[in-house]
Amino acid sequence: MSATNSQSAKKAAPDATRRSERSRRAIYDAALGLVGEIGYPRTTIEGIAARAGVGKQTIYRWWGSKAEVLMEAFIDLGERNQEAAAEKHPDYPLDFDSLPDTGDIEADLKLVLRATVDELKDPRFEAPARALAAEGLANRDFAEDFVAKLLMPGLDLYAARLRAAQEAGQVRAEVDPLIARDLFSGPLAQRWLQNTGPLDHAYADAIVEYALYGIGARRP
Amino acid sequence: MSATNSQSAKKAAPDATRRSERSRRAIYDAALGLVGEIGYPRTTIEGIAARAGVGKQTIYRWWGSKAEVLMEAFIDLGERNQEAAAEKHPDYPLDFDSLPDTGDIEADLKLVLRATVDELKDPRFEAPARALAAEGLANRDFAEDFVAKLLMPGLDLYAARLRAAQEAGQVRAEVDPLIARDLFSGPLAQRWLQNTGPLDHAYADAIVEYALYGIGARRP
Repeated sequence: MSATNSQSAKKAAPDATRRSERSRRAIYDAALGLVGEIGYPRTTIEGIAARAGVGKQTIYRWWGSKAEVLMEAFIDLGERNQEAAAEKHPDYPLDFDSLPDTGDIEADLKLVLRATVDELKDPRFEAPARALAAEGLANRDFAEDFVAKLLMPGLDLYAARLRAAQEAGQVRAEVDPLIARDLFSGPLAQRWLQNTGPLDHAYADAIVEYALYGIGARRP
Repeated sequence: MSATNSQSAKKAAPDATRRSERSRRAIYDAALGLVGEIGYPRTTIEGIAARAGVGKQTIYRWWGSKAEVLMEAFIDLGERNQEAAAEKHPDYPLDFDSLPDTGDIEADLKLVLRATVDELKDPRFEAPARALAAEGLANRDFAEDFVAKLLMPGLDLYAARLRAAQEAGQVRAEVDPLIARDLFSGPLAQRWLQNTGPLDHAYADAIVEYALYGIGARRP
């Protein structure tokens, strides 16, 4: 490559990046919008490209399938939502690396579970999240990717917060955080996926209280 | 209808019933077999009919879709499995109307959760159960039917058993059984659906112990 070519490539880069970023955002918005409006089965790469105003080759250059586009659009939506939540709760460090730790495990878990309920009930999340869960059930390779990129990072945050609570003496030392975290995520996921009862803040609070203090009348 | 016709109809009835029952069983076996072998998306009413040795009109007379056939085949499989489990555990009344109640809520819940783990890991259950869950996510009308016929009856048994434990003083009086039951079913469903960790008897036991006695170091 000549020095001139290299220089012109350098000059072009910021514009190209901005264009890419604009296209990426348009593709995410188109994918989320179409799935919400016409449903996942009828959403196609062609439809996403048309709505985003890009060629479908642009989409195929970055993603292998509509499921992959939707998953990244969904992760991006979650990140933007988390940024908005952090602005609403300036006292709590709601970031991507940890759950809030004020030293009070009950209060922190209630905040997290209430925020999760709000997110699960947000209509922007509903259709894409159900579509991704269904795709994960139908397609094992996609399921592995989906669990690794979307689900496990969240579950790992629970385990880390429970370990910190063990160190602070708020959770029993013999409890396995990799099992205990399921007491919080499992019930919410089931109510949401299968609509087996109301999913609201009172439910979130009850789950936290039952899991922390037990439903049994006395300890063995 | 003449007396003669009526009599011949009466005579014909036992044979017709036997034939129907044989066809129904063959259709269930064909549906479960095909879903296990070629997957749900490629399973069709035509394929089920051919394998069961019946006309496809026979299937359409009884069911509206392949999802409905599969759901009833799956419920039937569960009932046969439960009968087999009852024979294996003669001390426990594992029937369709109640969970075991020996007076020891911890032992009874562990037995039920271990049996659920065994069922979820049974390869005959795996493919149809995932297919039904995926169909439920994609199709809201089917989801309502699926939850009402397959899921809620099981969840209601948990609630009834927890109420009996409250009356026996083994579960705190202020606990809502309609929420507390989710601590048992939710974690198992999530591990099974999303493969987020090992699903075995040790896991079942830990979930029961954590939910009954709490993971917290002390009560508030």
